[in-house]
Amino acid sequence: MSLPRPTRETFTRYLPILTWARAYNRDTATSDLVAAVIVTIMLIPQSLAYALLAGLPAEMGLYASILPLVAYAIFGTSRALAVGPVAVVSLMTATAIGALGVSTPAEYALAAITLAFISGVLLALLGVLRLGFLANFLSHPVIAGFITASGVLIAASQLKHIFGIDAEGHTLLALLRSLGAHLSETNLITLVLGLAALAFLFWVRKGLKPLLLKAGLKPRLADVLAKAGPVAAVAVTTLVTWAFSLNDRGVRVVGEVPTGLPPLSAPSFDPEMWSQLALSAVLISIIGFVESVSVAQTLAAKRRQRIDPDQELIGLGASNVASAVSGGYPVTGGFSRSVVNFDAGAETPAAGAYTAVGIGLATLLLTPLLFFLPKATLAATIIVAVLSLVDFSIVGKAWRYSKVDFTAVTATIVLTLLVGVETGVSAGVILSIFLHLYKTSKPHVAEVGLVPGTHHFRNIRRHKVETLPEVLTLRVDESLYFVNARFLEEYVLNRVAECENLRHVVLMFPAVNEVDFSALETLEEINRRLDEQGITLHLTEVKGPVMDRLKRSHFLDELTGKVFLAQYDAWCELQSGPAEGTKDKGLAAQ
Amino acid sequence: MSLPRPTRETFTRYLPILTWARAYNRDTATSDLVAAVIVTIMLIPQSLAYALLAGLPAEMGLYASILPLVAYAIFGTSRALAVGPVAVVSLMTATAIGALGVSTPAEYALAAITLAFISGVLLALLGVLRLGFLANFLSHPVIAGFITASGVLIAASQLKHIFGIDAEGHTLLALLRSLGAHLSETNLITLVLGLAALAFLFWVRKGLKPLLLKAGLKPRLADVLAKAGPVAAVAVTTLVTWAFSLNDRGVRVVGEVPTGLPPLSAPSFDPEMWSQLALSAVLISIIGFVESVSVAQTLAAKRRQRIDPDQELIGLGASNVASAVSGGYPVTGGFSRSVVNFDAGAETPAAGAYTAVGIGLATLLLTPLLFFLPKATLAATIIVAVLSLVDFSIVGKAWRYSKVDFTAVTATIVLTLLVGVETGVSAGVILSIFLHLYKTSKPHVAEVGLVPGTHHFRNIRRHKVETLPEVLTLRVDESLYFVNARFLEEYVLNRVAECENLRHVVLMFPAVNEVDFSALETLEEINRRLDEQGITLHLTEVKGPVMDRLKRSHFLDELTGKVFLAQYDAWCELQSGPAEGTKDKGLAAQ
Repeated sequence: MSLPRPTRETFTRYLPILTWARAYNRDTATSDLVAAVIVTIMLIPQSLAYALLAGLPAEMGLYASILPLVAYAIFGTSRALAVGPVAVVSLMTATAIGALGVSTPAEYALAAITLAFISGVLLALLGVLRLGFLANFLSHPVIAGFITASGVLIAASQLKHIFGIDAEGHTLLALLRSLGAHLSETNLITLVLGLAALAFLFWVRKGLKPLLLKAGLKPRLADVLAKAGPVAAVAVTTLVTWAFSLNDRGVRVVGEVPTGLPPLSAPSFDPEMWSQLALSAVLISIIGFVESVSVAQTLAAKRRQRIDPDQELIGLGASNVASAVSGGYPVTGGFSRSVVNFDAGAETPAAGAYTAVGIGLATLLLTPLLFFLPKATLAATIIVAVLSLVDFSIVGKAWRYSKVDFTAVTATIVLTLLVGVETGVSAGVILSIFLHLYKTSKPHVAEVGLVPGTHHFRNIRRHKVETLPEVLTLRVDESLYFVNARFLEEYVLNRVAECENLRHVVLMFPAVNEVDFSALETLEEINRRLDEQGITLHLTEVKGPVMDRLKRSHFLDELTGKVFLAQYDAWCELQSGPAEGTKDKGLAAQ
Repeated sequence: MSLPRPTRETFTRYLPILTWARAYNRDTATSDLVAAVIVTIMLIPQSLAYALLAGLPAEMGLYASILPLVAYAIFGTSRALAVGPVAVVSLMTATAIGALGVSTPAEYALAAITLAFISGVLLALLGVLRLGFLANFLSHPVIAGFITASGVLIAASQLKHIFGIDAEGHTLLALLRSLGAHLSETNLITLVLGLAALAFLFWVRKGLKPLLLKAGLKPRLADVLAKAGPVAAVAVTTLVTWAFSLNDRGVRVVGEVPTGLPPLSAPSFDPEMWSQLALSAVLISIIGFVESVSVAQTLAAKRRQRIDPDQELIGLGASNVASAVSGGYPVTGGFSRSVVNFDAGAETPAAGAYTAVGIGLATLLLTPLLFFLPKATLAATIIVAVLSLVDFSIVGKAWRYSKVDFTAVTATIVLTLLVGVETGVSAGVILSIFLHLYKTSKPHVAEVGLVPGTHHFRNIRRHKVETLPEVLTLRVDESLYFVNARFLEEYVLNRVAECENLRHVVLMFPAVNEVDFSALETLEEINRRLDEQGITLHLTEVKGPVMDRLKRSHFLDELTGKVFLAQYDAWCELQSGPAEGTKDKGLAAQ
């Protein structure tokens, strides 16, 4: 047995690098290099901070920012996506491993590596099976609510570093309670450092760029300098801590970070750990994919490029596997860094590879300098970064537009904050599916009549229309399937029971996009029951695909009336009194 | 704070007995009594047999056939439903308790009582909250497949009694393997008795009634005699066993059954047991409700009566609580006994109460006679009863009509047989929901044009139609919501990219019954992207409810084109070249 030989198309589909690398030239390289330098400057403090957020040693953030970027450059389709550690996935990693109850840092790190590996395999598998559409089960409001609530949780989780105290918890209440209990142990020097860093970073974000522009700098340069704010905060606070030996006065610092390129690492293959991490890996993969693909699509559209969501799954899968074999933890395409990468002019995924080189150099040269970096500074960079993700306006928008979407977004936010990230996002998905099905479970059915002088039929409650005395015409405004099949049966039979001298029931199907097997049995039942009462059932404006399917059943043979192409044809024939028994059921509207 | 005073309507709604009891007279009583006698004759062997199937002592089947019937007579709305132990629920009870791993018969019985109590409370709660529609999440093919597979499992589980051997297992393979391993221990006398009972019962079911009719008996009497077949089998085999002391020669018998009315019993309130039984109780409640309400609706329709599904939940809830406090186990409305009750002329739920009296007398008078009843006879009555439920034709019907329904029914059957009842029915529900959503995730979108000489627009691929050169008209054949929102965006933008010199895109929404918040954001995005390319977006034939909702957002303000009542209006205006900028968005088709 031999596998089919891969064609050139297979290669270029699964290795997008083959497409863009051919047209690569000095100009593109220059653009990519500039973007890479700026992203590297952003990424150094972020990677350290997010590792801290995930509960991991700082160097794992750096390791997660090297090989994964190279893997994405080979397998990814977005020209501007910046892959690496991100806030929400780091929080989810902390939650997932926290639930394992491991005791030593080495076990904790192994669990993170394993989580990255499982996520990577899962993402790649979904990509090969072309199951990217699964991400669509997360509705926009659920994603927005989840990101907002996660931002609040992340910010709250970092407060302990600003105060220099210990606090534990994976829910907002637990975190706040724990903070309150330890507040008396606040280290004042840490607090001053942390608040200063916070104030500086907020000012950099809001006030620095206008100031630089006023001072006559070019917008591009002003932008770059503003993005370097976190690096400046890191440099200054590290220097201050070193100069005054603040680490001896209770200021917690990053401490020793090993120098050198990432070590080779391997995930655990303990089945028990896999089964405990499986659900978390699924959620991390899907959330990571959704965050990544949203920003990739937005940026691609701006340059009239397209990305391939299924290949993106493979790209992110490869990144996570790369992270797992090089001492990293789960990664994805980050929102803010990708926007910076794009604005800085990145033209190909090579920019990511150059960034990897930059971070690689940092692990070789800069790690000794990180010893005195205060954790409070890293916490401040996290807080400033995630608060820009927090946007509760989605709640109001959803409330005004649809109570169903409002319910889903509110449940997601409340459960994420009060129970945890995994419960929050799972409940959001399940609730939005359930509410969608619930909405379709009692479809809108309108009795219609003819608008005088036209061929149009409209709701008798909204319009002045003509009706025929012995005919009840009902327009069904929903696809018919198992969830609403029984409702239709009850509805039609109840309506018929209210009418006297009825001879015909006409069901208009212009908005019926599907009739599943359960609904087919219901239609057969309605036909049978009406027949018992001497009433004839007709269908009109049945769509082509629905009609094709009905023809495969016995329903059309049993139907006591006809199937009319247009509702007006039914009106004309039933008005004049049809010759019963003549059947003409082959026609369908399309 | 005081609750609102209950009105007369509240009483009659929650106590249907108040309605029918008022018109109760001697004629109705006679009809009910006749039906009750026949059902009692059927129920005595069935209740013993199903208790055996559930793994419980025989008397618990009798207890579950007394108070629950009285409770249903008070709270139920069906005139003909016969409540009590049924095959599928008994099997599910055995599975649920089997998974607990209890060791003593007393613990096993307590678990069954607790299961009945949890189910009862759950059903009543769903009824009070009017959540009966939840049962609609079970599609017809999933129910049919589940009942068929359960029938096979039940029959297989009874074979050990026919052979007089021990066998264990909750899946078909496990049962067959266990039967095979013990086959050498077959007790020949038991096997002869069992096969004789089987043959007799099959003959009674198929051949007796025609014979009796031929002999000149009235159809009604022939029917009653045929239904009494199991009682005859029980009587004869018990007599034979007693006469030849077959129980000393390895024929297993029911043994001592306590004489007397049901004892008072109480469920366990151990939280751990509740949490272990919770999922099983949910499944038992829903399956029991679906079985019960289907037969109740079918029978009610035959007499032009109606049942109230939400009050049915309360009725069945009360029955199960009654079962739990009187030494019984989960009950529901059974299919075959209800049909017999109906055919025998039951006119009110009082027939059920009379049946309860009949079973009560049996527990007082008949129990000593049951000592020598061979278990093989009970197994034979179960096998004959459940094989009538087995009908694999649903698989073929679903295959011909829809591959989606086929997938759901096949998965339900295969998983029920090979993994177990709970997995089977859960997978069926989840799979049918998922496949329904999947079908709607890539909606049918047709490019349409004008049928010459009419105002109708049809698919350009199916019909000969006219189109305008600068206008792309797309009819969307599905509600727009989060699962397909992104698909629509990609589809429209890809189609636009293929067209040259395009100035207008018209989206026809006659089959769009919903636009949720995610889809709204997608429409905004499509509008924005088209605007960037200098293309105007229009909507036509938007349904009233959808339009009402769109008006609550900013979309109509941002829309670059118009909303037209009819597609033909858009055709006329775009043909003549619209004066851009004049907006007229208040109109919507309904």
